[in-house]
Amino acid sequence: MSFKLTILGCSSATPTLYRHSSAQILNVNERLFLIDCGEGAQIQMRKFRIKFQRINHIFISHLHGDHYLGLIGFLFTLHLLGRTKEVHIYSNYELKEIIDLQLKISGTTLLYPLIFHPIDSTKPEVLYADDHITVSTIPLDHRIPTTGFLFIEKPKERKIKKEIIANMDIPVEEYKKIKEGADYSDKNGKLYKNAELTVEGPVPASYAYCSDTGYTESYIPLIKGVDLLYHEATFMHDKEKNAREKFHCTCIDAATIALKADAKKLMLGHYSARYDDLQPLLKEAKKVFGNTILAEEGMLYNI
Amino acid sequence: MSFKLTILGCSSATPTLYRHSSAQILNVNERLFLIDCGEGAQIQMRKFRIKFQRINHIFISHLHGDHYLGLIGFLFTLHLLGRTKEVHIYSNYELKEIIDLQLKISGTTLLYPLIFHPIDSTKPEVLYADDHITVSTIPLDHRIPTTGFLFIEKPKERKIKKEIIANMDIPVEEYKKIKEGADYSDKNGKLYKNAELTVEGPVPASYAYCSDTGYTESYIPLIKGVDLLYHEATFMHDKEKNAREKFHCTCIDAATIALKADAKKLMLGHYSARYDDLQPLLKEAKKVFGNTILAEEGMLYNI
Repeated sequence: MSFKLTILGCSSATPTLYRHSSAQILNVNERLFLIDCGEGAQIQMRKFRIKFQRINHIFISHLHGDHYLGLIGFLFTLHLLGRTKEVHIYSNYELKEIIDLQLKISGTTLLYPLIFHPIDSTKPEVLYADDHITVSTIPLDHRIPTTGFLFIEKPKERKIKKEIIANMDIPVEEYKKIKEGADYSDKNGKLYKNAELTVEGPVPASYAYCSDTGYTESYIPLIKGVDLLYHEATFMHDKEKNAREKFHCTCIDAATIALKADAKKLMLGHYSARYDDLQPLLKEAKKVFGNTILAEEGMLYNI
Repeated sequence: MSFKLTILGCSSATPTLYRHSSAQILNVNERLFLIDCGEGAQIQMRKFRIKFQRINHIFISHLHGDHYLGLIGFLFTLHLLGRTKEVHIYSNYELKEIIDLQLKISGTTLLYPLIFHPIDSTKPEVLYADDHITVSTIPLDHRIPTTGFLFIEKPKERKIKKEIIANMDIPVEEYKKIKEGADYSDKNGKLYKNAELTVEGPVPASYAYCSDTGYTESYIPLIKGVDLLYHEATFMHDKEKNAREKFHCTCIDAATIALKADAKKLMLGHYSARYDDLQPLLKEAKKVFGNTILAEEGMLYNI
């Protein structure tokens, strides 16, 4: 199954010439999930050849402009492209108020149903589940209600030990049950425990998006062992005071969270516009958590 | 006096990979006027080295997203850059409602005063005047209340005929009055009519921005003889039906307006995303009005 992340933007509050505001696409088996949608995201999508019409679900972490100002333009564009299929938005409910006002004033009635799923940012909750993936919230600690998002593949079927079952003459219809964990009795009534017939399937892949937040360990249990943790690292640690005041994290904070959460990999992002060269940020985080990489625009990461 | 136009974006409703939505900067003696502010305008400003803090007055033609969705992000950025100087917005008043809602929901109190000047789009009116320039509205004919903008340099002082006054011993304090059109009596009481002493000063430069509008000749008297007419040309003329339905113009329409208004030059813009190559649009317009050019991103035009 494909489980790929494309970074459309990874700047914090103000975009720079080389970095757009927060926006990402998670591709799960060619179903695209849009995570935050900063200004210019639709142009970035064109640049990185993202198929607009494959996006059905949009997750907005919070209502600071750099995380959603590209959304209304994208919704207008979908309308102008003739979309009729539903679009689902998962967000603080006030976003509906903003969008409704802008649609009303522009005299626009969207051709497609726009369905809002309000987020309660005070506690973790499952927002979405299909046959491939579950998406839940990660309550974060920012100046306004904010949640991160956790994407986890559905648990995979167990893998049948081919060498064991080769001569057992198991009816085809039993295979699915065995893969799902059932024991098996053959035509002579002999019972085989599932563990004799199968091994664990591949571990489900997982991705956690944590932006924006001040340093807190409260959400570590939610992201324990995650394959990829995208974590905001707005500042280097010499700006710790700024970070604390503004409810943001430093590179050391992000790396500490990754370490304590046993993340497989950490991707830094949401950089302050003051940093042209990001290598010092990477170096700082790696002192705490070695398996760290930098988010960069246009990057495609296989989780 | 400098009177220069920079095109930040000239796409119609949906931005393309190579064309942003409507936004322009008019530089009048290093005072910058922002005309419309489509999504991504602030990034375009960085690209074309526009000094953000020199912008004090922002004119928004109408509240379709492609003409204002970059504004709120730009206002946030000015705030984050620490601006304290007033920003004036000239627009349909409903824009204030949109901005106020977005500021409230993001928990932002701007560091600078944001002053709204509501536009009455039903009749032409003067919006702004300083010692260099006057800005007035051009009521247009679109699906929602829309105005273009006319920028006219203040009439220049008359030019003194140096060869005539060389031996007249005119006191310095009289010069300004004569340049403003006054007659002059010398110490012996001899009257010189102003026309004997001066010739007309340079003709004031003028710029008209007309986007978006269906074809109408109602505003031609307002833009008569303008030096540069930026006019929307969303479609080629084979899409005249689309243009009429959507209250837009074709290239032929724009050229016809330029011709009937005796414009010195026509700049086409607000192109539909369907056109990759703009040369056919230029060719079509030139059949009607020879002195036509294409708006292109990053273009700097001396009016």
